[in-house]
Amino acid sequence: MVRIGIDIGGTGIQVGVVGEDYSIIKEGSIPTRKDLPFEEQVRLIADCVVSTAEAAGFSISDIESVGVGIPGIAAAKTGEIIKCTNMNWFHVPFREVFTRFLDKPVYIDNDANVAALAESVIGNSAGTSSSVFITIGTGIGSGIILNGRIWSGAHHIGGELGHVIFDLDGVPCTCGNHGCLERYCSATALIRMAREAVSEHPESLMMSLADRDPARIEAKTVIDAARSGDELAVAVYGHYTDCLAQAIASVVNLLDPEIIVLGGGVSKAGDFLLDPLLKKYPQYVLFNDQPLPPVKLAVLGSEAGIIGAAMLS
Amino acid sequence: MVRIGIDIGGTGIQVGVVGEDYSIIKEGSIPTRKDLPFEEQVRLIADCVVSTAEAAGFSISDIESVGVGIPGIAAAKTGEIIKCTNMNWFHVPFREVFTRFLDKPVYIDNDANVAALAESVIGNSAGTSSSVFITIGTGIGSGIILNGRIWSGAHHIGGELGHVIFDLDGVPCTCGNHGCLERYCSATALIRMAREAVSEHPESLMMSLADRDPARIEAKTVIDAARSGDELAVAVYGHYTDCLAQAIASVVNLLDPEIIVLGGGVSKAGDFLLDPLLKKYPQYVLFNDQPLPPVKLAVLGSEAGIIGAAMLS
Repeated sequence: MVRIGIDIGGTGIQVGVVGEDYSIIKEGSIPTRKDLPFEEQVRLIADCVVSTAEAAGFSISDIESVGVGIPGIAAAKTGEIIKCTNMNWFHVPFREVFTRFLDKPVYIDNDANVAALAESVIGNSAGTSSSVFITIGTGIGSGIILNGRIWSGAHHIGGELGHVIFDLDGVPCTCGNHGCLERYCSATALIRMAREAVSEHPESLMMSLADRDPARIEAKTVIDAARSGDELAVAVYGHYTDCLAQAIASVVNLLDPEIIVLGGGVSKAGDFLLDPLLKKYPQYVLFNDQPLPPVKLAVLGSEAGIIGAAMLS
Repeated sequence: MVRIGIDIGGTGIQVGVVGEDYSIIKEGSIPTRKDLPFEEQVRLIADCVVSTAEAAGFSISDIESVGVGIPGIAAAKTGEIIKCTNMNWFHVPFREVFTRFLDKPVYIDNDANVAALAESVIGNSAGTSSSVFITIGTGIGSGIILNGRIWSGAHHIGGELGHVIFDLDGVPCTCGNHGCLERYCSATALIRMAREAVSEHPESLMMSLADRDPARIEAKTVIDAARSGDELAVAVYGHYTDCLAQAIASVVNLLDPEIIVLGGGVSKAGDFLLDPLLKKYPQYVLFNDQPLPPVKLAVLGSEAGIIGAAMLS
């Protein structure tokens, strides 16, 4: 038996045939077609599932379940997708319609949540029953696993660490509020801090690495310059990791999971990110004379979406 | 059969005999005696349990279980009290020692957590399986109920909403950090905001209510003056409820419980607190086009500690 994991993204839909050891046996994909009616979109996804399974040598009867991770809000119990702006889906009965084309158990959850689940089963948090997975990219995504299950809230709108208030009346956020956590802890935040800093110190290595154009400074630019010892980059990156350490401590003060796992673009900095975080975050924890959660890097990368979706049950 | 609920406080230990309908049948109390050795303190508590039960007409065999709420960190599984500064208890085997004096099932948890549990079973959150209970007093206490059980974290140090970072590099906190949520949302915060405000506007009604001594301004002073329409008090209270609304929205963005319940001194303001919060908090929720948790007042008051402790299992 195999499970199907589906990762619905902005430009494409990835379908994976996942074995009992949670390895991806075969992948298929189709472009998103938000111009089509909902039922037609679902039919194309179901077709892709069948063709990908068959290409891997499996028949429909070999498929145990179908799991879907979406960038939006899903009602796991009813199988309804409440909101998925990328697909133009609002309150659509995904499970009901999908099973018309392929009659299998269908599970749906948010994409950050399924990635958190995948990491908690076969990633760096494997063997734990509670974990918080934080993806540090353009924004801050997060997934909460408690008692071995995804916790997405009573109305499926939880797990949005990026929009917890972190700096009262602070930097305006894309969501319309001010001072949201992701404005201080995302890759976008690191870039903003660096661009502000180079305007006063154009002699920084960051400017050379960015062809002297502040608009070309990326998160990697700051990290590379800080690794090279550029004074300004070290200061900017130090401030950034201090923010992230306070965010991690906030998660510990409120939820105290067994482990915290970091993914997303900025996490590619590896130990250069982990080392300062591990050094700094305990000072912001209330009961920091107690054992504290370790902070580790995600290991599954972009496959976490497919694998985690396949794990839904 | 009856259950025993014990509320360990700073100056006294309250013991309650709790019926199957969770009403308190009889209460007893002893002063805290942190000068005594741990085993002697526990013996006094066990004696008080027996005498209180007997005074209510019950024998030892009628006692089903003993639950204890402590202001500190408890390992619910092992029955160890990890840290209870009020009692001078650090890593003490409470359950083991207590059962030497009274051989009953013994359960321990943090006092905010047991109050949250009590509210979730027979209070304003009755019938829900997830809730966050926030006590607004000198500090901010909180208890998280998920799937009908207390969630205190993997290392028993979670549920400390008051020490989530809320204002980066903000007001210094008693814990040693800066910008903790309780510095903006507790009664202490409201008092600080009011005292700062009257220094510029001594004509405020708050000054008259406080006998013209800013040091005598309490939370109730601000609330009473705001109810009377004092312009400065209205502005201060408006800023305070805006902070609290952002705190509630942060809880929703991260945890999305079925309901949020407010207790503690400031909650005595009743609808004068709830109305602005309910009006303001949705604007700070990311997915505020979805159904959101109601916010209600706690109903159990100081009895929640005994009742919730008796509910532990």
